[in-house]
Amino acid sequence: MINLDEMYMRKALSEARVGGQKDEVPVGAIIIKNREIIAKAHNLCICLCDPTAHAEMQAITSACSFLGSRYLTECTMYSTLEPCIMCAGALYWSQIGRLVYGASDKKLGGFSRKTQLIHPKTKITSGVLEYECGEIISDFFKKKRKFK
Amino acid sequence: MINLDEMYMRKALSEARVGGQKDEVPVGAIIIKNREIIAKAHNLCICLCDPTAHAEMQAITSACSFLGSRYLTECTMYSTLEPCIMCAGALYWSQIGRLVYGASDKKLGGFSRKTQLIHPKTKITSGVLEYECGEIISDFFKKKRKFK
Repeated sequence: MINLDEMYMRKALSEARVGGQKDEVPVGAIIIKNREIIAKAHNLCICLCDPTAHAEMQAITSACSFLGSRYLTECTMYSTLEPCIMCAGALYWSQIGRLVYGASDKKLGGFSRKTQLIHPKTKITSGVLEYECGEIISDFFKKKRKFK
Repeated sequence: MINLDEMYMRKALSEARVGGQKDEVPVGAIIIKNREIIAKAHNLCICLCDPTAHAEMQAITSACSFLGSRYLTECTMYSTLEPCIMCAGALYWSQIGRLVYGASDKKLGGFSRKTQLIHPKTKITSGVLEYECGEIISDFFKKKRKFK
């Protein structure tokens, strides 16, 4: 039987890889509604010269534009990395229905830090394809250090 | 003698008023470098149908684009309201040199909540024109309730 969370997380991982090919930190995010992907994004901070251009931020902006609504209550975000506090704040404002993330970010993650910044409407699942989602980032930084 | 912080906060207040005229929650933000205003913005969440379109987020994106840098270490942001956690996160990533805000936001403010999400390079001043900055928002919501 297909594990839907893993299937969608693989789509987010594909986005992360596209980011990595552009020399961005490889984080990817997608948003689905009724099993349909309505937004997908990867980190673009370097390409756009914009520290706010995280994958999750762009996926939220894109999904809201697609739906014509500031609220994503019936949507699920799949993100390869635990959203940082900025992205956790954006998810709060969007009132997203569900967040599924892969690797945890103990240092800058918006949820590990116990900011309690979770909208009452949002359910959270963590650790989906955790190893793959973490490995793509650690490999990226290993290569960075090697060529420094 | 001119109080520079108050002078710049009045510019941010002007931005907040422009937002209010568009029926947005009246919050304004400007960013200066070497005493020159390099970005100004007001809330555009409703106009852009985007929950991430807070005044501070747009000011950061705009200032980084202007400078061609993802970092605002030599800049100061003036915001009429204490930035929320999303905006505080964005300020963290931007490594902004100084943040000056007017009214506090005890409920959703990124600093009142003690998230300790302050970049070591960032100095913070609060309460500049606090009354005016808070009044413009409370007046806005009073009118909203009246016409409901």
